[in-house]
Amino acid sequence: MTAVNDQPQMTTELSDEEIFRAHEGGKLAVGATASLADPRALSIAYTPGVARVSRAIAADPALAAKYTWAHRLVAVVSDGTAVLGLGDIGPSASLPVMEGKAALFKTFGGLDSIPLVLDTTDVDEIVETLVRLRPSFGAVNLEDVAAPRCFELEARLIEALDVPVMHDDQHGTAVVVLAALRGANTVLGKDVANQRVVISGAGAAGVACAKILLAAGIGEVTVVDSRGIVHVGRDGLNPVKAQLAEVTNASGLRGGIAEALRGADVFVGVSSSQVPEELIASMAEDSIVFALSNPDPEVHPDVAGRHAAVVATGRSDFPNQINNVLAFPGIFRGALDAGAKRITEGMKLAAAEAIAAVAADDLSVDRIVPSALDPRVGPEVAAAVALAAREDGVA
Amino acid sequence: MTAVNDQPQMTTELSDEEIFRAHEGGKLAVGATASLADPRALSIAYTPGVARVSRAIAADPALAAKYTWAHRLVAVVSDGTAVLGLGDIGPSASLPVMEGKAALFKTFGGLDSIPLVLDTTDVDEIVETLVRLRPSFGAVNLEDVAAPRCFELEARLIEALDVPVMHDDQHGTAVVVLAALRGANTVLGKDVANQRVVISGAGAAGVACAKILLAAGIGEVTVVDSRGIVHVGRDGLNPVKAQLAEVTNASGLRGGIAEALRGADVFVGVSSSQVPEELIASMAEDSIVFALSNPDPEVHPDVAGRHAAVVATGRSDFPNQINNVLAFPGIFRGALDAGAKRITEGMKLAAAEAIAAVAADDLSVDRIVPSALDPRVGPEVAAAVALAAREDGVA
Repeated sequence: MTAVNDQPQMTTELSDEEIFRAHEGGKLAVGATASLADPRALSIAYTPGVARVSRAIAADPALAAKYTWAHRLVAVVSDGTAVLGLGDIGPSASLPVMEGKAALFKTFGGLDSIPLVLDTTDVDEIVETLVRLRPSFGAVNLEDVAAPRCFELEARLIEALDVPVMHDDQHGTAVVVLAALRGANTVLGKDVANQRVVISGAGAAGVACAKILLAAGIGEVTVVDSRGIVHVGRDGLNPVKAQLAEVTNASGLRGGIAEALRGADVFVGVSSSQVPEELIASMAEDSIVFALSNPDPEVHPDVAGRHAAVVATGRSDFPNQINNVLAFPGIFRGALDAGAKRITEGMKLAAAEAIAAVAADDLSVDRIVPSALDPRVGPEVAAAVALAAREDGVA
Repeated sequence: MTAVNDQPQMTTELSDEEIFRAHEGGKLAVGATASLADPRALSIAYTPGVARVSRAIAADPALAAKYTWAHRLVAVVSDGTAVLGLGDIGPSASLPVMEGKAALFKTFGGLDSIPLVLDTTDVDEIVETLVRLRPSFGAVNLEDVAAPRCFELEARLIEALDVPVMHDDQHGTAVVVLAALRGANTVLGKDVANQRVVISGAGAAGVACAKILLAAGIGEVTVVDSRGIVHVGRDGLNPVKAQLAEVTNASGLRGGIAEALRGADVFVGVSSSQVPEELIASMAEDSIVFALSNPDPEVHPDVAGRHAAVVATGRSDFPNQINNVLAFPGIFRGALDAGAKRITEGMKLAAAEAIAAVAADDLSVDRIVPSALDPRVGPEVAAAVALAAREDGVA
């Protein structure tokens, strides 16, 4: 097996000096959308004019949606417990990532957002804090919260708040994985209904990938974590994995990644475990390999390419980058455009179809998803998600 | 007594249509300070580049001050219980005011800020919420929180957070009142040490005005609330008023506003109680009248002008507008520039002196303070406040 690069090629080209200079002072700015620098403008935007707007909202709370920024504002919320591949580095150290996320919301979704990083990891306290702040925002993008706590936190927030809530590390990844699988299958002339997928990793992304693939009608899903194949009756499964065991591994496989991959059609790597070349070689003919761990893919794409028909990674320096930015800006934009109170499975599936549709014009084994920077993606995803929200009756 | 106008003249000229149109969608936007629209920029600002910044902050938390926006970000916090003159209209209805405040922070202080409006009025819960969010911001501007709860809340937040915290309705107003009194005294050749001031109103602004005037060496302060002169031994004083009684009314006056104003040198109105012309006439020669209630001053400035040597209001359509915007952007900017952990009395006094100094070049009875839009004020206040922070040892 060829050695996997320690660092992505593009990163190596970036100097520390260049990176740190770009982050000095943070990456966000709040601006006024109207001038306040003349007396009349000041009287309209602030006192005395603003009193009429406040009085109107007090009389009819629904007007807050029209006359404040809150109903379109995404809170990017993290406790800093699972930041990129860095782990539990805390809220302050997570902030550069959340600022970047907010910048991506603006650039690719046209949405305002603010990072809220929390100095607590207690689910009750996080829920309570966001409930108290509820009038300040219109949606919650959960980010970089460790599994399995992220599952409970997301569920509790969806229950407690009447706004769209989504843990992007789960569903953003899952949506783009499904879109990429659609693209790969179109290129290869395959059908999800006949495919067996192996997911390596049962954290936030792994669980969500399993769920969306099942919802999309995949033939079979087998999930492998650090202790092997997740199956019914395995000792010590947490509630999320126990539930996963119920709906996956229909063939009743036992063992580890080697047993799971033998004859499998698709590999989705969302852990940092390396996968040896011979296991990729053991997959079915015309296999599909998504090695998404960053910065080190589970298997180097050049190695996987010797055996698989289609290879994708999370990196920008190889073909087929599976990047959440294809999904989350459009998902939130569509949900907010529609006035949706929550994000349904139907909206996520619609997002995946929309991403796949943008790539459909110009599909190849090296282009199963659109570029992360393709400006068509955000609006197309938003439109599809808004439509699905109305169809699902949540808008 | 001439009838006081129901509406300020400038407001009357503003149509509802014009005001509501200006507030549609809110008044703030969050932008990225760097482009993310090409692959290299994305790799620097987001993954993989951002991981190096997060890792560096995890290793040395002090770097968060350099590489995130939080240390310069002002949280504009309200529970919506005392919004303008509208009272307890709740957090959503307060949001247009908080957005306006954030816009003023940017325009006059060059500071980013975000409104955080809270769906709780419980002091413990508000403190707890902001402590949990602490890594997200660098300062707290409390706004439109009802008295006397605002005093406890501010004190508790100063205690709990190691960042500048200021309730602007208290101290912003007090600082500008002191600056205006400096200006009036210079014009009239008077000295604060020989002056007796009557403050009408013992809410947020009244209490803070009394304190800063005493700190500035005023001869005597008498505070009058809806039940008359605040004095030692009066029944039913809340703790804040009891403390105020200890340090004010050295002459031992009893009675109401009429008894207080007879022979007084300065009137500061920060309640909505109207004051009849004959009481203004009963003040000392060359009296100074600050009738700051909005939109209806305690006494119409034309009426006050028949008796007083200097008249100021809170309105932009009369001379001598006493507007908090002269103070808060520069106070927070100076505190953050200096890296101050709190805002001291010395910093507030320095802010008042700086405001007065900007007006000093061109002083007259109709120009005792700079224009609210004078672009020199913010930077001058910031420089003076930063210096005072270092002198006071809080930076």
